[in-house]
Amino acid sequence: MTDDPGRPVVILKPAPHGSRRIFTEAAFRALHERFTVVDLEADDSPEAFDRALPDAFAIVGQPDLPRERLARAPRLRALLNVEGNFYPNVDYETCYEQGVHVLGCGPAYAQAVAEYSLGLALDLARGISREDRAFRAGRERYVADGNGDAILLRNADVGLVGFGNLGRALRTVLTGFAPVIRVYDPWLPDGALREHGVVPAGLGEVLARSTFLFVLATVTDESRHLLDAEHLAMVPPGARIILVSRAPVVDHDALVAGVAEGRFLAAVDVWPDEPVPAGHPARGLEGMVLSAHRAGGIPAAFLEIGEMVLDDLTLMARGLPPARMQVAARELVGRYRNRPVDGPG
Amino acid sequence: MTDDPGRPVVILKPAPHGSRRIFTEAAFRALHERFTVVDLEADDSPEAFDRALPDAFAIVGQPDLPRERLARAPRLRALLNVEGNFYPNVDYETCYEQGVHVLGCGPAYAQAVAEYSLGLALDLARGISREDRAFRAGRERYVADGNGDAILLRNADVGLVGFGNLGRALRTVLTGFAPVIRVYDPWLPDGALREHGVVPAGLGEVLARSTFLFVLATVTDESRHLLDAEHLAMVPPGARIILVSRAPVVDHDALVAGVAEGRFLAAVDVWPDEPVPAGHPARGLEGMVLSAHRAGGIPAAFLEIGEMVLDDLTLMARGLPPARMQVAARELVGRYRNRPVDGPG
Amino acid sequence: MTDDPGRPVVILKPAPHGSRRIFTEAAFRALHERFTVVDLEADDSPEAFDRALPDAFAIVGQPDLPRERLARAPRLRALLNVEGNFYPNVDYETCYEQGVHVLGCGPAYAQAVAEYSLGLALDLARGISREDRAFRAGRERYVADGNGDAILLRNADVGLVGFGNLGRALRTVLTGFAPVIRVYDPWLPDGALREHGVVPAGLGEVLARSTFLFVLATVTDESRHLLDAEHLAMVPPGARIILVSRAPVVDHDALVAGVAEGRFLAAVDVWPDEPVPAGHPARGLEGMVLSAHRAGGIPAAFLEIGEMVLDDLTLMARGLPPARMQVAARELVGRYRNRPVDGPG
Amino acid sequence: MTDDPGRPVVILKPAPHGSRRIFTEAAFRALHERFTVVDLEADDSPEAFDRALPDAFAIVGQPDLPRERLARAPRLRALLNVEGNFYPNVDYETCYEQGVHVLGCGPAYAQAVAEYSLGLALDLARGISREDRAFRAGRERYVADGNGDAILLRNADVGLVGFGNLGRALRTVLTGFAPVIRVYDPWLPDGALREHGVVPAGLGEVLARSTFLFVLATVTDESRHLLDAEHLAMVPPGARIILVSRAPVVDHDALVAGVAEGRFLAAVDVWPDEPVPAGHPARGLEGMVLSAHRAGGIPAAFLEIGEMVLDDLTLMARGLPPARMQVAARELVGRYRNRPVDGPG
Repeated sequence: MTDDPGRPVVILKPAPHGSRRIFTEAAFRALHERFTVVDLEADDSPEAFDRALPDAFAIVGQPDLPRERLARAPRLRALLNVEGNFYPNVDYETCYEQGVHVLGCGPAYAQAVAEYSLGLALDLARGISREDRAFRAGRERYVADGNGDAILLRNADVGLVGFGNLGRALRTVLTGFAPVIRVYDPWLPDGALREHGVVPAGLGEVLARSTFLFVLATVTDESRHLLDAEHLAMVPPGARIILVSRAPVVDHDALVAGVAEGRFLAAVDVWPDEPVPAGHPARGLEGMVLSAHRAGGIPAAFLEIGEMVLDDLTLMARGLPPARMQVAARELVGRYRNRPVDGPG
Repeated sequence: MTDDPGRPVVILKPAPHGSRRIFTEAAFRALHERFTVVDLEADDSPEAFDRALPDAFAIVGQPDLPRERLARAPRLRALLNVEGNFYPNVDYETCYEQGVHVLGCGPAYAQAVAEYSLGLALDLARGISREDRAFRAGRERYVADGNGDAILLRNADVGLVGFGNLGRALRTVLTGFAPVIRVYDPWLPDGALREHGVVPAGLGEVLARSTFLFVLATVTDESRHLLDAEHLAMVPPGARIILVSRAPVVDHDALVAGVAEGRFLAAVDVWPDEPVPAGHPARGLEGMVLSAHRAGGIPAAFLEIGEMVLDDLTLMARGLPPARMQVAARELVGRYRNRPVDGPG
Repeated sequence: MTDDPGRPVVILKPAPHGSRRIFTEAAFRALHERFTVVDLEADDSPEAFDRALPDAFAIVGQPDLPRERLARAPRLRALLNVEGNFYPNVDYETCYEQGVHVLGCGPAYAQAVAEYSLGLALDLARGISREDRAFRAGRERYVADGNGDAILLRNADVGLVGFGNLGRALRTVLTGFAPVIRVYDPWLPDGALREHGVVPAGLGEVLARSTFLFVLATVTDESRHLLDAEHLAMVPPGARIILVSRAPVVDHDALVAGVAEGRFLAAVDVWPDEPVPAGHPARGLEGMVLSAHRAGGIPAAFLEIGEMVLDDLTLMARGLPPARMQVAARELVGRYRNRPVDGPG
Repeated sequence: MTDDPGRPVVILKPAPHGSRRIFTEAAFRALHERFTVVDLEADDSPEAFDRALPDAFAIVGQPDLPRERLARAPRLRALLNVEGNFYPNVDYETCYEQGVHVLGCGPAYAQAVAEYSLGLALDLARGISREDRAFRAGRERYVADGNGDAILLRNADVGLVGFGNLGRALRTVLTGFAPVIRVYDPWLPDGALREHGVVPAGLGEVLARSTFLFVLATVTDESRHLLDAEHLAMVPPGARIILVSRAPVVDHDALVAGVAEGRFLAAVDVWPDEPVPAGHPARGLEGMVLSAHRAGGIPAAFLEIGEMVLDDLTLMARGLPPARMQVAARELVGRYRNRPVDGPG
């Protein structure tokens, strides 16, 4: 074996991404220069993986890691999840016990999702896609005629359900609008929210006072259908609802009904069943902006994952803590109920 | 006559708006409490107008005011234009000689235009309306599949052609994106631009280096077709062009051609002929966001005009200078070539 | 005469500054290249001035300009005041009638004053100069011992009396502290203040609710001793008062008394009599930061004046309006009661 | 025993603080309502501590915790350090192995230090304390006379050595000054710095290009005398150096010499020996602002510690991760060489 025995061993198994998607050429080259890379992208055999485990310093990806497998990886210092969700195929408790950093790539998507969310909100505020469609159909309305329900975001009442990476990134892109941002996040104390310049509030208050409501919460047993019909009835008439995190947080039937009845407008990026059935009623709603799970997965976000992976591997190899990926909280990593993005319904 | 002789006389002739559009009820009431209002909204006779002129302290609107008419208005202190453009039906030089403030309502539209421009830019960045259309047609592409050309605005190279009210408002809403903003504005020295945190640049540099190009210039003899085919050829491949100010600043045929050829994407709010002819090729372009002169004329902007009018009339009646409307520059007021928004093509 | 007859004539009489102070070498050279400069800096004879008037396009400085002199300057387009205050030695009404721009250099000082004001506020918040003195005297107190009255500026209640150039610049440097800023300015309507993200308030409310109170008002007949003993009694115990604009706005005896009694702390940059008498009681107050009219007059501000002068002369020579200096409001220019900075008490 | 057996047991041993200093009355009451508090503030006996250990859910303070003691605390979930530095009297490795969160209160001091640092920088920029001293001595210089070396912070070149809690808080309070901020921090990759809007740079570049240089690094074996005479010689003439983190990072003799020779100005809050010897040459330097370790220890910061402790204990008792205190990095906690603030020289 010609590899430098001093270079730490990194197992590369970055599904669902190919390495090409998350690493620039320069990053991929740097990765190979700094580490002994065991590239299992194209090799799905458990044998190859098991063979690499005893020497592994880090694993890039999210392969099955039950307790017994982790037991065979005494040198493992980090598991770098590049998919965005933590699935139960890893024994996280054992990772923490063995001193393995469990790292997530959520921050890489945050900017993309925040910008997209703001784009959706401005579309709902001003009817951009609706009037574009009308224009193509020869029904465009000039100047004020199509602006009857147009509103400003400046100084508006904005509500956020959830304040993790996405919420913080969204708060930043909203800076120039000087909104009042009320946040409901049961995992964060009021003081933590105030440090970010947002107003802590109960879910009811966030719903009842938001002209723009962004749903950014992750899925847990507690947050499933958090926004049901009863809750959706609390938003002010004419509110704009932007759903970009996870479909199960909202009762979609109630959401579709509210838009159909003209009680509020909504932009929806995540759906209970993807692909969405052909005859789904949302496809014909004028008051909805339709989006096919597109908020985060853009080229810049994927490449950001690769940069983060390379940066944190490099830091850890120097004996320093990771600084770019998200350190998964031991208390939370087992509670997420997000499904794989590409998985079946 | 029952009116308080001490209250200044204000002639109200706010076409093309009705008073209802620009004044809230409270503002309209306050206007009548503080001033003797000669309401000519429904009275188009020159006689009524001429009768009111000798006592007039201010005129809200933009009626014909040649030199001889101004000569009959010795008490006139202000002409408050509520349409947004200065037309040559007023002898502005005489206004300045007589000490009449010429005020424009441009600032009232700036926030609406800025937010709309950002909305268009994010649509172009992420394909929001394009993919919404696809979704309705049952052709939606999930996750990364429709994101091939998606880009971030964060830290992007942004170019502005023109830096008046619109440019400043746009700069503010862009704050949270930390872009590099290059500005071409031949009416402003570099120092004035730097004070606003933007980078002064020549037109060629702005065009060649902007991933997002916002065209915000007003029309003068100099700026007509400022962006012709040759200039449009300078923008980087894949650039996003947002045209929200005045149609004549750009060669529309060249713009449409560039989008059709896939050299750049564009969002267009102003058109050489409005309404746009039925068979206009832009109506079928996938790479264009189509908008029917909708950027500024929203309810909140109209009501802002009324607030500004009331505030400035009140200040001037107290012997103070206006503080909210834009004081028209004597040097520029005669150079604008904008046409009435609702006028013929 | 060898001068290019096509170049506009600029009379240079920049007292109290020397040209060296306000112009960099490059700016001074550009001034001479673009204009026919009649340099009267060293020539105080009225004859020289009168000789230059008939051809003058602009005057840099503030020489005596009664009506009859202005009558002899038919080509005059601009009076560029480089001292910072408008004195009654100019017939401003005639300037406006003749279409002469009256321009002030206040904006050039605004940043310097804003930064200095914040420096004074932080000194008062944390006892920086007080504890530095103690340290030099061998009486320093470590860690928390000297911090008993130390407070944060972050999220603090900040009050501004006056919101002109200084107030706006101060608001900007305060951005990162996210304070609540209440403003009293009788010349500005609430809407104008809200546009700047500050809260309009009455004088009483500003005084009663401000932990940090910045006095930035200019002097008029109305604002003389605006802050008298009674008003000063309204500030909360332990407030920090920063006086940087004009001495006559505050009753200094009451201010000194309040500090002496420990009711509030204060930083004072302007004084009723300058130089301050040798035995002035303020010289011994521990709760006061003493400053000798130093807030604005720094090298960078002086050179900024020169840049502004050059920029605006250049614009006006091109037929464009000035864009950097402050266009003096006809209604206000005669109301200022500021005295020359270097004048007798 | 009357205590609710269901309430988690918290050992309170918050030296060097008293509980009164870090807890408001309301927070202290809430602490006792939510937890069974074993208050050892006044009880220094090891016996009392050892008696409480077996049931302890959390320890507030930094008592000696060798491996054998931790072994007797099987229910321990968190060690909440309220002093600000991590000392080697705790076996941190064992903490991590046992799943004990090691939390620091550094963030509570960050805002206080950032504001103080900016105050010192503005003092150095404008000579506030120097001219205040002169004023008291009857030697004050008016207007421009004492401003010869005064400079602006706006758009200035700012350098930061170290970018932890302090650096991030400082960056925020600098927002309104729009500086260029170059940062040297060997623990952070460039991408992590860029996310914060600062420019990653080598130490040499930071030193050579900074008009304002903030030294914010913590002490490790690597950073001791990081800024020695040679490095200090690299700063531009007239630079302003602000030292607020830890004394050993800088060669103080070289720093004093540089100020004495007029090569740069400096503000110093931390000293190799505290108290500083009576005859220390710094006490007489005009170009230095002297401060006695006062940057962080203000009432608001102490109370913030208590709020953070209460918030995080409450979260952890609910099975959630801490959200306000800093989770100490396993890789770093043993590398700090900071000494107790109140300890001997």
